[in-house]
Amino acid sequence: MTDPIPRESKIREITSTSNPLVKLFRHALAEGVTRDGWVAVEGPHALEEALAAGARVSVQTVIVSHTGSVKFKVMLDRLPPESEVALVEDPLYGRMSATQSPQGIAALVELRPPSLDDVLRLKSVLLLVACGVQDPGNLGTMMRSAQALGADAVLALKDTVNPFNPKAARSSAGAIFHLPIFHGLEAAGTLKKLRASGVRIVASAANSSNALHRADLKGPVAFVIGREGSGLPGEIMRNADLLLSIPIRAGMDSVNAATAAGIFLYEAARQRGFEKINH
Amino acid sequence: MTDPIPRESKIREITSTSNPLVKLFRHALAEGVTRDGWVAVEGPHALEEALAAGARVSVQTVIVSHTGSVKFKVMLDRLPPESEVALVEDPLYGRMSATQSPQGIAALVELRPPSLDDVLRLKSVLLLVACGVQDPGNLGTMMRSAQALGADAVLALKDTVNPFNPKAARSSAGAIFHLPIFHGLEAAGTLKKLRASGVRIVASAANSSNALHRADLKGPVAFVIGREGSGLPGEIMRNADLLLSIPIRAGMDSVNAATAAGIFLYEAARQRGFEKINH
Repeated sequence: MTDPIPRESKIREITSTSNPLVKLFRHALAEGVTRDGWVAVEGPHALEEALAAGARVSVQTVIVSHTGSVKFKVMLDRLPPESEVALVEDPLYGRMSATQSPQGIAALVELRPPSLDDVLRLKSVLLLVACGVQDPGNLGTMMRSAQALGADAVLALKDTVNPFNPKAARSSAGAIFHLPIFHGLEAAGTLKKLRASGVRIVASAANSSNALHRADLKGPVAFVIGREGSGLPGEIMRNADLLLSIPIRAGMDSVNAATAAGIFLYEAARQRGFEKINH
Repeated sequence: MTDPIPRESKIREITSTSNPLVKLFRHALAEGVTRDGWVAVEGPHALEEALAAGARVSVQTVIVSHTGSVKFKVMLDRLPPESEVALVEDPLYGRMSATQSPQGIAALVELRPPSLDDVLRLKSVLLLVACGVQDPGNLGTMMRSAQALGADAVLALKDTVNPFNPKAARSSAGAIFHLPIFHGLEAAGTLKKLRASGVRIVASAANSSNALHRADLKGPVAFVIGREGSGLPGEIMRNADLLLSIPIRAGMDSVNAATAAGIFLYEAARQRGFEKINH
């Protein structure tokens, strides 16, 4: 007889739809975060990323369907000792899931809150600031680029979609577990704090005549990227130290916001030397 | 008494759901294209882009709701003389629309088919080739970047999502009306044709040790970008003249496919001189 889950002591079986943990998961999988700030992840791939992420990330509770408990046995065996596992029947998992084809495994993950002061003490810090970005896929893609291209943190200002929104988290390809992510920050105070720490505020502005590739992007820099379509509010533009644009063909307004962020970060990495990305 | 539509001679009122034009529009708005290759566009913004696009684009038939005929009167007045206009009641428009909040105006647009031979005769031609890209938003974003950053055409190989898919068209921000777009191309034959015309095949390959920014990207070049997640098939990699990667931080696989395309095009434009974008 094979037992699909070996960690019996930590497993509890849940059968009721009204169980508080099931309710918590259903809400968290739809929203991406719980009220206590835990991040909900769904599917083996996302859980794998969380498990691989290291000290900042702690997998608190895993919920698994009967089918999932067999299919993902190897992953369950690798869970850290402090994780709890809850087992549910497949139909109950299906009712809780936020995906169209539930794979039978999800988790609540605690991220140790990053410290902006610690980030700002880094040498030649490189920050990506999202100001009003609405599309979670765009914000996730930006976080992925930030992690890939050597940024030290992503700051999502108020009026920006929640970076832990399930679609944003998925599009980040695991970056949310590696990179310090701040959200809900108040714009004026945050820019003031960055500037006080010696960080140059560089705003992406499609109509600026200062071309990205001609600017010196060494030293501490924060790239501020605005909302799809409308760009940055005038107040942010006036508060920036430098407005830069990617030179584009006449007749086009701009490139996609996430593409613009990727190009700004690439240009910074190119000037700073790509070998410094892994510091 | 004000008449919402002044071009009476060309307007016909349609009242039946089973009218062939209504059926054609319903299908075309869902699919993005008709069997005859007309592109369906919905909403005043997309129609505006089509009208502004110039000689390659001809707006054949506009369908407008009663509410839309008042709201978009100025646009209707500006339609070229050869366009037909069909007027329908608001509820009938709603049943035909592919959007959740129909704005009451849509059109079938004819794009003069581009010639690949003409494109290949351009000096230092710059092409973006999508190979297996599945997400229409990604493909649209790539077309937008291609137009913005000076590419001469986008080639979508077989197994790539249709570039005229409504979501791809929308994400292209009008690029589909400006840039020559080819689709459904057979991979081996197309690469052979490009190479025969002196175009270097440069494939994006995350695991290549040749860094994008160190390569010489002048002269005729085609950038080949693969499917999200899995990248390019081995056959394409073996057929490429050069494999290039964007150097990224350890632990990340890659950036988003559309972001990668944007960065490749940006690097090419930077090396070639941005002022040459508007040729």
